[in-house]
Amino acid sequence: MKKRIVIALGGNALGDNLKEQMVAAQGTAKAIVDLVEAGHEIVVVHGNGPQVGMINTAFETASKADTHFPLLPMSVCVALSQGYIGYDLQNVIRKELDARNMKVPVATIITQVEVDPKDPAFNAPTKPIGGFMTKAEADALASQEVPVMEDAGRGWRRVVASPKPVGIVEAETIKALLKAGQIPITAGGGGIPVAMKDGQYRGMSAVIDKDFSAAKLAEIIEADVLIILTAVEKVAINFGKPNQEWLSSLSIPEAEKYIGENQFAKGSMLPKVQAAISFVKTKPGRTALITLLQKAKEGIEGKTGTVIKQ
Amino acid sequence: MKKRIVIALGGNALGDNLKEQMVAAQGTAKAIVDLVEAGHEIVVVHGNGPQVGMINTAFETASKADTHFPLLPMSVCVALSQGYIGYDLQNVIRKELDARNMKVPVATIITQVEVDPKDPAFNAPTKPIGGFMTKAEADALASQEVPVMEDAGRGWRRVVASPKPVGIVEAETIKALLKAGQIPITAGGGGIPVAMKDGQYRGMSAVIDKDFSAAKLAEIIEADVLIILTAVEKVAINFGKPNQEWLSSLSIPEAEKYIGENQFAKGSMLPKVQAAISFVKTKPGRTALITLLQKAKEGIEGKTGTVIKQ
Repeated sequence: MKKRIVIALGGNALGDNLKEQMVAAQGTAKAIVDLVEAGHEIVVVHGNGPQVGMINTAFETASKADTHFPLLPMSVCVALSQGYIGYDLQNVIRKELDARNMKVPVATIITQVEVDPKDPAFNAPTKPIGGFMTKAEADALASQEVPVMEDAGRGWRRVVASPKPVGIVEAETIKALLKAGQIPITAGGGGIPVAMKDGQYRGMSAVIDKDFSAAKLAEIIEADVLIILTAVEKVAINFGKPNQEWLSSLSIPEAEKYIGENQFAKGSMLPKVQAAISFVKTKPGRTALITLLQKAKEGIEGKTGTVIKQ
Repeated sequence: MKKRIVIALGGNALGDNLKEQMVAAQGTAKAIVDLVEAGHEIVVVHGNGPQVGMINTAFETASKADTHFPLLPMSVCVALSQGYIGYDLQNVIRKELDARNMKVPVATIITQVEVDPKDPAFNAPTKPIGGFMTKAEADALASQEVPVMEDAGRGWRRVVASPKPVGIVEAETIKALLKAGQIPITAGGGGIPVAMKDGQYRGMSAVIDKDFSAAKLAEIIEADVLIILTAVEKVAINFGKPNQEWLSSLSIPEAEKYIGENQFAKGSMLPKVQAAISFVKTKPGRTALITLLQKAKEGIEGKTGTVIKQ
């Protein structure tokens, strides 16, 4: 049965640098095209943590070397990262489509995601960007008032504000492309964070969590399923402990109970489960699936992954 | 009468830096929305000379400071510049549409333009990028084998190869958006230069002239008119001389005769006239218009500008 699916690609779908991105994106393309071939309508959303950090660093370095050089706002860095990643992703997806003789156009839409300027997130940065650092490097940045945090046991990273998405500015464009049978790549890096001011969308200093943006987009374009692809096949409770348990399905009350027990890591599995809940709650019949990149097709067939439903 | 129009925006439509871009883009938005309000289908193509130069410089500086930092290929720099400029342009156009109560979606498509890897342009870089330099600065770069040239009397600039466009990879997406009544911003900076290799589009080290890309796009999407907006109201012969003459219309044989007489400056008016000819030649009835940004609407009404026709 044909479904409208929004796929949110995790960091492992793209890698941490240009070379890794080129290799990782090929496996990602197979996972996406499997779903297109099965007859589904697909919208692709991706992260941009390493890439937006890299762009930000390049302009920071250049503006230190030459004071006339512009320091780009974070919103503009996200816009650049959408071009950077989208270009690569649309090509590997196209290659995979061509290899299967499927004539389905794929294109990247520069996408703005509206946030509320009064979102409390602006007072407490929590979203990791850029590469991993040692504690000493992190301490050095922190002493210059650059926010840093320890990221899920993997090392230290810079952090920026991560407000919740409230609207997708280019939603009509995404709908038009789906109607035309195309594959839009959109809301890259969670979308360019903007808010309306004096009759114009203006960039905000933030990076929106791509899973939340994917959930908001899925709601607005009336998707049937939100798939969040990540580095594990299923969601677990008691993760890493002797009584660890992989979950095949998760109702909203169960998910909320586990969140209350701090079962899911901040900045890692927690926002994925929260994003899944936020979409599933919007309408009866809508489901979310969290699984491994390589298992997307089996997941949608009900063979693996964790399904979140009302 | 409703026409399908491709608009190519010159450097003056966007300015030379982030601040100038924000101011210049507002006037540009008015010119574009005037044509939308008159009932025409509009596709927007823009240049990226200063912006792509800035992105390239930022990554060059960062990779000098840290040898692990990636030096981005020129094709990837163009992809980033499309996100950078498109984001800004779509917002100022949207603001102008909103101010007139026009509900017309506008969005930026990351666009690849196919070139021929055997194009002789790859052996002789001619396309200026980045800011203007003094002769001394240019000589210093030239001594490091970075190609530079004097740009139409305005100063020295870096140059890269500028092959001719042979196809627009995302043409079907642009067509779908026009069919849906939307305004696509596309082929920014002349498009990301790519060539097919081993079943996949790969970036080429080049910057395609945006007027030629606009002409190729206009041909492929069956546009009626190509408008090239620039810093002068009309094309002139004997430019800057006592016998200078502004031209209201130009047939292909006339234009080719003047090109033979070196009437048009290389890297400035020459590629505009050549691009206009290349589009007009493709089908009877197709016309091109070269005029001032602020005169686009009057130009399409036949009141000013230089019309190029068969």
